[in-house]
Amino acid sequence: MMTHAAPLPAAADRPTGLWLAGARGSVATTTVVGLLALQRGLVEPTGCATTRPPLDDVALPAWSRIHIGGHDVVSTPLETRADALADAGVLPHGVLAAVRPSLAGIDDAIKCRPDPAPGVDVQESAVRSLAADIADFRQRRGLERVVVVNVASTEPPCAEEAWHHDAGLLTQALADPGKVALPPSSATALAAIRAGCPYVNFTPSPGIRLPVLEKLVTAAGLPYAGSDGKTGQTLLRSALGPMFAARALRVRSWSGTNLLGGGDGATLAGCGAAASKLRSKSRAVTALFGDVTAPLHIDHVPDLGDVKVAWDHVAFEGFLGARMALQLSWTGYDSALAAPLVLDLCRLVAAAHAAGLAGPLTALGCFFKDPVGSNVHGFADQWRALTDWAATLPRAGRSR
Amino acid sequence: MMTHAAPLPAAADRPTGLWLAGARGSVATTTVVGLLALQRGLVEPTGCATTRPPLDDVALPAWSRIHIGGHDVVSTPLETRADALADAGVLPHGVLAAVRPSLAGIDDAIKCRPDPAPGVDVQESAVRSLAADIADFRQRRGLERVVVVNVASTEPPCAEEAWHHDAGLLTQALADPGKVALPPSSATALAAIRAGCPYVNFTPSPGIRLPVLEKLVTAAGLPYAGSDGKTGQTLLRSALGPMFAARALRVRSWSGTNLLGGGDGATLAGCGAAASKLRSKSRAVTALFGDVTAPLHIDHVPDLGDVKVAWDHVAFEGFLGARMALQLSWTGYDSALAAPLVLDLCRLVAAAHAAGLAGPLTALGCFFKDPVGSNVHGFADQWRALTDWAATLPRAGRSR
Amino acid sequence: MMTHAAPLPAAADRPTGLWLAGARGSVATTTVVGLLALQRGLVEPTGCATTRPPLDDVALPAWSRIHIGGHDVVSTPLETRADALADAGVLPHGVLAAVRPSLAGIDDAIKCRPDPAPGVDVQESAVRSLAADIADFRQRRGLERVVVVNVASTEPPCAEEAWHHDAGLLTQALADPGKVALPPSSATALAAIRAGCPYVNFTPSPGIRLPVLEKLVTAAGLPYAGSDGKTGQTLLRSALGPMFAARALRVRSWSGTNLLGGGDGATLAGCGAAASKLRSKSRAVTALFGDVTAPLHIDHVPDLGDVKVAWDHVAFEGFLGARMALQLSWTGYDSALAAPLVLDLCRLVAAAHAAGLAGPLTALGCFFKDPVGSNVHGFADQWRALTDWAATLPRAGRSR
Amino acid sequence: MMTHAAPLPAAADRPTGLWLAGARGSVATTTVVGLLALQRGLVEPTGCATTRPPLDDVALPAWSRIHIGGHDVVSTPLETRADALADAGVLPHGVLAAVRPSLAGIDDAIKCRPDPAPGVDVQESAVRSLAADIADFRQRRGLERVVVVNVASTEPPCAEEAWHHDAGLLTQALADPGKVALPPSSATALAAIRAGCPYVNFTPSPGIRLPVLEKLVTAAGLPYAGSDGKTGQTLLRSALGPMFAARALRVRSWSGTNLLGGGDGATLAGCGAAASKLRSKSRAVTALFGDVTAPLHIDHVPDLGDVKVAWDHVAFEGFLGARMALQLSWTGYDSALAAPLVLDLCRLVAAAHAAGLAGPLTALGCFFKDPVGSNVHGFADQWRALTDWAATLPRAGRSR
Repeated sequence: MMTHAAPLPAAADRPTGLWLAGARGSVATTTVVGLLALQRGLVEPTGCATTRPPLDDVALPAWSRIHIGGHDVVSTPLETRADALADAGVLPHGVLAAVRPSLAGIDDAIKCRPDPAPGVDVQESAVRSLAADIADFRQRRGLERVVVVNVASTEPPCAEEAWHHDAGLLTQALADPGKVALPPSSATALAAIRAGCPYVNFTPSPGIRLPVLEKLVTAAGLPYAGSDGKTGQTLLRSALGPMFAARALRVRSWSGTNLLGGGDGATLAGCGAAASKLRSKSRAVTALFGDVTAPLHIDHVPDLGDVKVAWDHVAFEGFLGARMALQLSWTGYDSALAAPLVLDLCRLVAAAHAAGLAGPLTALGCFFKDPVGSNVHGFADQWRALTDWAATLPRAGRSR
Repeated sequence: MMTHAAPLPAAADRPTGLWLAGARGSVATTTVVGLLALQRGLVEPTGCATTRPPLDDVALPAWSRIHIGGHDVVSTPLETRADALADAGVLPHGVLAAVRPSLAGIDDAIKCRPDPAPGVDVQESAVRSLAADIADFRQRRGLERVVVVNVASTEPPCAEEAWHHDAGLLTQALADPGKVALPPSSATALAAIRAGCPYVNFTPSPGIRLPVLEKLVTAAGLPYAGSDGKTGQTLLRSALGPMFAARALRVRSWSGTNLLGGGDGATLAGCGAAASKLRSKSRAVTALFGDVTAPLHIDHVPDLGDVKVAWDHVAFEGFLGARMALQLSWTGYDSALAAPLVLDLCRLVAAAHAAGLAGPLTALGCFFKDPVGSNVHGFADQWRALTDWAATLPRAGRSR
Repeated sequence: MMTHAAPLPAAADRPTGLWLAGARGSVATTTVVGLLALQRGLVEPTGCATTRPPLDDVALPAWSRIHIGGHDVVSTPLETRADALADAGVLPHGVLAAVRPSLAGIDDAIKCRPDPAPGVDVQESAVRSLAADIADFRQRRGLERVVVVNVASTEPPCAEEAWHHDAGLLTQALADPGKVALPPSSATALAAIRAGCPYVNFTPSPGIRLPVLEKLVTAAGLPYAGSDGKTGQTLLRSALGPMFAARALRVRSWSGTNLLGGGDGATLAGCGAAASKLRSKSRAVTALFGDVTAPLHIDHVPDLGDVKVAWDHVAFEGFLGARMALQLSWTGYDSALAAPLVLDLCRLVAAAHAAGLAGPLTALGCFFKDPVGSNVHGFADQWRALTDWAATLPRAGRSR
Repeated sequence: MMTHAAPLPAAADRPTGLWLAGARGSVATTTVVGLLALQRGLVEPTGCATTRPPLDDVALPAWSRIHIGGHDVVSTPLETRADALADAGVLPHGVLAAVRPSLAGIDDAIKCRPDPAPGVDVQESAVRSLAADIADFRQRRGLERVVVVNVASTEPPCAEEAWHHDAGLLTQALADPGKVALPPSSATALAAIRAGCPYVNFTPSPGIRLPVLEKLVTAAGLPYAGSDGKTGQTLLRSALGPMFAARALRVRSWSGTNLLGGGDGATLAGCGAAASKLRSKSRAVTALFGDVTAPLHIDHVPDLGDVKVAWDHVAFEGFLGARMALQLSWTGYDSALAAPLVLDLCRLVAAAHAAGLAGPLTALGCFFKDPVGSNVHGFADQWRALTDWAATLPRAGRSR
């Protein structure tokens, strides 16, 4: 008989899995190399908000307790991608050299899973295999839990379907050899649910936001978060926008352009995926200022590599109608901005899962361009919501 | 026994004076023209934060209840200055035409008060006259209270003196014909205290921040606010800085340049006054990021007129040491940015006075580059402090 | 018998007509108001290259000798448009007030000519009427010559047709009531040719560039110039591009965005017209750097009014592959940039006509984004070609 | 009697020395590593104007014929500096690895020469030793000629002295143990003259521009060039400025800021050296636009390393007084911009020497902020002067 039961183990004390969908992409590779470097104490955790007050006081999985798994449609070794990122200025050559021997081991934990072919495969088997892979990863490594994070290529928006709303219709669709029903990001979300894992959508792809999946995840008692990591231009907008509103300055237009190279740039040059991204990006401006003119472009400029350049022009009106303007130009490494957020999200979602929370984690809105379950876009308000929420989680000992 | 006691008059219901030190300058003239336009319903109160939720619910003096008085060292008619501001794009020609007939009346309420000459005059008599002018203005107009706001030219920092700390020594110094003791902004502050009026320093001049004056104002039961209106570059910095901190991005340098024409530009081209301004501006960066490299310049570029152009370059470091940069370029009309804040401050300080508050109004920090009594510089935190404080003030009826 | 013939009258000595196609638009209105102001000596000829050395020494029509005529599809009075331009900051209120009485007289010289309706009208009659209008204008005013300048709205590119190449087929097409054959800009060009007038295309519309028209104009012994006035972003590119080439710096991408309001912005928001403009703009980059990545956008931002904001990001590579970047941000009034070029072109083309030149005036390439008869895009080379050519023209007396 | 005279050897055919004053600095190290990489065919000659038409047709020393020597006040090995430059992103790690074995050999050819101490040493001996070193380098390596290029730290402007104008007084001053007479850059110039070598001043230091040295160098039949390599902000200004002039646009102010880290930034943070640099920079604006407002700053921002960020704000006026603005932001690696110019200058000055030219090489003005013997600052005009001059030099065979 268990009496005087010891308190539930805090999240920070237990091994945690980080399962990356798109595990061989730039963001994933930067996350992996960065985690290895943090585990070895080679670098400061710059960019990781969970290592700074007040979040550093919350019981979260230590770097040493985080294990990487994942899947991807391609099988390029991590080392190959990491070398390219080092040449592009994202990964320091010295850091990569130090962690290089560990990359092959992580390669082994990444499954190659091509998307099922429409008209040939049923998607049900792909979902089932993926769920089994995740569960197997958890069991073999003795993990307390696994957080599934989607960092795969952006998908186009998907058209409304009847089976987006009904579990029975979904089951039929998945088993139909004539079609593949779910977008890959949503198939991953379903596999995560089946494996009993919380899910984070770091892209604007549909993911878990189909109504049927939102019902299933909540019914399963699992938390989820998303969508679309807020890494640059939208981050700036969400920090500056509320200032204009508080000062009663009238924003008349907020025009923007993004230049990006790399894989993400090539994907977003395809109109469909760009539509997802632009839709996600424009939500913040609309939420903050209503129906202002806000043209926005994403251009693929291959020579920029992993660099993203964002330019914003804000035309605003002040006292007595005075016309004024603000211009912003942001030059950043997309993967270097995203990777620490992936680690932060893994830790915070693990803590949410440990705390027994289910459904959309609205308190994590500051991480996303298009936050689930929230229309709050101002960064300061989002940050306050995060820290207020974090204050309700168990504390770590000060020995960290 | 208190029976049938009438409720205390709400601030909004009573006539309020706005006494402008530097009443013939660009900021003052824009404030005056703007107030007249608001009183006539000619323009929207763009830029006036007190007209927007949640502040619009607080009992504050209506536009129609605000009366302008003031003093200046020069006697140029307001109309002359207003015409120059219209040509410079700050004041719309149509609005100026509509309020022009009222300017002469306001001219009459502005005293010409040259600064006393060192070695000839005693400053005591200047202070006494100014206090009498303010009190006279209050009485003749039947005002409930007068808020004194310093919008005169920026003064250089002043060296430490013994009489900055001791009321007796101050009295002696003011009566000494051999010297003039107080900087003009501080003489105005002392006159305000003697006349029983709250004081706002909208410039980085010493004003009320000499310890002896801070003691006197608090002893007199009067509130005060300052210093140095946060209108542009520092406003942006205080909105963006906390975002970098929350995201654990390491700001390595924050370099800035200001180009401005007009009277303010000419004043600040003199090294002394620029030193005040630069000191005030750099406080925010230091408070937010500690000891980062933060060179800052103010250049006088006469052809820009009332336009101020501010450029900022922020070099920051992200995950794994990635080097990134943000550039900001702000083009605004200095007076158009300042004037609505002067009106907001007049209304809020009037409400504070009506509520019986004394000492530094730290809740008004969001209006200032160098907020009295506070080391909070992040705009969102300041805004929250303001709205929390405003929620403690009496409400206005919804009939406004 | 005429012997001892007097020398040919220099262009500067004779009255010259400036016939504006699109005479009620922003560029035309600014041109008209500016010319009136120059005739009265109210303003300096800022922006008019022909008033500066070495061009000021060439015999060109004086301001007082230039007479305005034109046509437009709309009939809005010039005064209405001029008032809007004054409110937008393009025309100084004082200047407009001074020339306002003369605007009605110019209105009288502008014909309202709606485009013929396809399926109803034959275009031949429209062309004939227009040619007659121009000839009538020349005769009534006693003008030595008339320069026709197209400043009407940008048209989409037109598909290739057989009658673009053959005068006979063209004649048939113009007379066919079932169709309207020529784009409006080309119909204007044909009318100009028939009236014996030189033609300038200040827009990227097809204009005179259909092969059949280029044959006709040359056969008629008339000079022509175009296309698409180089007023801002392309002007900068053509000044900076050759510097990169001369320095052997490798431009890797040249990305651009344009924000513009006003009528031009609305027209260019339609995909067809924007295609013309973008095609014209991209020619310079391709000519200068070959096949580099050069994404370019034009966004309609109505609140900007006549302001055009152009942003360019140039990624270039230096010694040992070092990656560097240049960003440009240009904020200008589109009509204020265009109008003095229209006046310059009128004067220079008049001089070319006086000198008996026929065919494309390649020496005028510096005025155009897409210069006829030339693949030289570098501004300095174009400028040198202009000044070399101008040196072959008759000199004016120094009395000007 | 000269019979059977062999034709004069073409410059390209003979070994040429490049003697670097400041041979251990960033510019010199980048030059050395770059030359080694070019000699091995590891990189393209990006940034070297002499490798592109029309200059590639001139007979100039091939990369393989250029030998490096030099002196510096410090003795840090080139490898140490090169590693720092690789970490800073200036030198590619792979290129440095490939040429690393050759660096020690070049270290051996660099003399450590501390500046003589005032009051202790006579400078005459330092000048004599340096001249002997250069001559010795030429003889031992069997060089046809040596071009001395000053890339040492910028010196402050020097006050006018009598011995700046008189060779006899100079001789006395150099021999006086009580003082050191010449600035180091001028001592180097004198040593070059004595060794019979052409001299190039790539910095704004006084160098050869003291009148007495200009007389001596011309009397010696030697050519010289300078001053202050035009690498970034001034390069842009000289490309754009003439466009404004040609277009009759009135530049009203041209304001600039430079941020730079590295050794150059630290040197220029000292007021004296910055004064030299700012004086040199401002010459171009004044030459182009006359007496416009042109504030300019250089800030030392250590975290930027070798990166230089330059921001320019150009306020200009167009037709009818319309106010417009251009902003430029340039982010470049200072050493990567300078080094290919050093190589170009070495080759061109060698050709000038081979051609028997003496005195200031005004045709090389496009390389310099403050060109000797010329007030032409527009880049296109300078470029044309260079190519016109180059056309007078002997041609290389097409076999290069």
